[in-house]
Amino acid sequence: MQLARDSDTTGYLIAPDPAAPRLTRAVTGHDHTGAETKISVVEERPLTIYLNSQEIVTAMTIGDYPDYLALGFLRNQRMLTDADTVTRVDYDEELETVVVRTANPTNHEDKLKKKTRTSGCAVGTVFGDMMEGLEDAQLPAAEVRTSWLYALSAAINRTPSLYLEAGAIHGTVLCHQTQPLVYMEDVGRHNAVDKVAGWMLQNGSDPADKILYTTGRLTSEMVIKTALMGIPVLASRSGFTAWGVEIAREVGLTLIGRMRGQRFVCLSGEERLIRDTDPASITDEPRKSGRKGAA
Amino acid sequence: MQLARDSDTTGYLIAPDPAAPRLTRAVTGHDHTGAETKISVVEERPLTIYLNSQEIVTAMTIGDYPDYLALGFLRNQRMLTDADTVTRVDYDEELETVVVRTANPTNHEDKLKKKTRTSGCAVGTVFGDMMEGLEDAQLPAAEVRTSWLYALSAAINRTPSLYLEAGAIHGTVLCHQTQPLVYMEDVGRHNAVDKVAGWMLQNGSDPADKILYTTGRLTSEMVIKTALMGIPVLASRSGFTAWGVEIAREVGLTLIGRMRGQRFVCLSGEERLIRDTDPASITDEPRKSGRKGAA
Repeated sequence: MQLARDSDTTGYLIAPDPAAPRLTRAVTGHDHTGAETKISVVEERPLTIYLNSQEIVTAMTIGDYPDYLALGFLRNQRMLTDADTVTRVDYDEELETVVVRTANPTNHEDKLKKKTRTSGCAVGTVFGDMMEGLEDAQLPAAEVRTSWLYALSAAINRTPSLYLEAGAIHGTVLCHQTQPLVYMEDVGRHNAVDKVAGWMLQNGSDPADKILYTTGRLTSEMVIKTALMGIPVLASRSGFTAWGVEIAREVGLTLIGRMRGQRFVCLSGEERLIRDTDPASITDEPRKSGRKGAA
Repeated sequence: MQLARDSDTTGYLIAPDPAAPRLTRAVTGHDHTGAETKISVVEERPLTIYLNSQEIVTAMTIGDYPDYLALGFLRNQRMLTDADTVTRVDYDEELETVVVRTANPTNHEDKLKKKTRTSGCAVGTVFGDMMEGLEDAQLPAAEVRTSWLYALSAAINRTPSLYLEAGAIHGTVLCHQTQPLVYMEDVGRHNAVDKVAGWMLQNGSDPADKILYTTGRLTSEMVIKTALMGIPVLASRSGFTAWGVEIAREVGLTLIGRMRGQRFVCLSGEERLIRDTDPASITDEPRKSGRKGAA
């Protein structure tokens, strides 16, 4: 296990809880020398999400914030829209289900009924629905200071997390300027983002002045979700996919990747990036920071 | 871009093709100094998989080996079983679809028809179906030499790949003793595994004497797929999830993770691991090997 140094969760609204007993488990095995070793590994549980009486998907999750995960997933898949009023979210730990109830049936349920009469499953359409949501979507032309990005990256790497405790997990952090606000982790990269989306929905958080930081890759789905959430800046330690870059440029998302120590690459939104920090003034990331690139 | 040194693809049946123009794209952006930079990023395309007339799923993939991906996905999801005879696999690049045709309707299609009358979508059941496949599954008690694991790890890291070319991609390699055989890469960790499964299905490859190596995490889904493929050993540079370990122990899968240089952790199948190499004789992984842990 690696310990975060100078750990600091000041100003967080939600920080990771690496000590939570339900999220990790100590497992005994043998290391390369043959010596018995006990390591901490993350839990992984199925959670089936329902929209009213409609079974939508079974996600594999560490199991924290199931309500935010369900809300955020349905919202990011555009199965929940502004037109829908969420009346209740019921989580059943034993049944491993979470049911999101709306005042009236959603468009998605109607669409699904039509769809099931034809191809039998709506999975294939989900992605299309997400893309639809991007039609003439334009994000606010929010400026971003490199000083903010460097400060966030340093603060997030110092934050005690399940990643530092057990590895094999992704993190997504909602931030404002230099302040990380909501830090979600999950075995599924997209679950972490969806939990942030669910929190924002629940708390009416304004996305226009926010920055989303992820340990995961900047894939099309990650870029689309960030855009659908209305957040104008997405930064990551990890790399890009071509379609992710394309979509970011179309919707005016500032996209920054391969961010490690003083280094980063900006592939979209350079004109909104305020370079107020001399990279040479940033000490490059210590080798043993514990963070590794999420390939 | 990072170059692999001592590149060697001797003995591979399928090796990555980092030079393939369709798989990566050069994108221009700006680095941390503000200088214009051109980097290579992986492509990412939707591919909708049909089983006969049934739309099953839309996967995001780099786009190579769509036929293996479709076959392997359907097989690993147990939508295709030994009872089914695949008559044709039709890939349409323009429509971004691949259709797997069987001599007779599959159980899955029947199940889906029932299912769609109730909850409207079979997504939630897919995972259950995979688990079902594991009931009283027991893998052959194949011995594994640590000398093989060290040799494979070194060979795979020296193999020119899209990862070394563009990053942000996962690799899965089917191996026999010290020889990597089929090295698939994809933006989706599971696509890479499914492409290997499709290749094995197509070529009638015997899984009992094989080792599966992945750059991805050892999640429940990765462990289940390896077990369903009948491969008794799964090794990774990356970490574990608790459920992944549990399932590996249940089905008798040898599970080795956090494999870097001379280090690794074995959390299942220690009794089948033959430690024929002194770890001290293995030079630890060079810092700049280009490989990073897939968090």
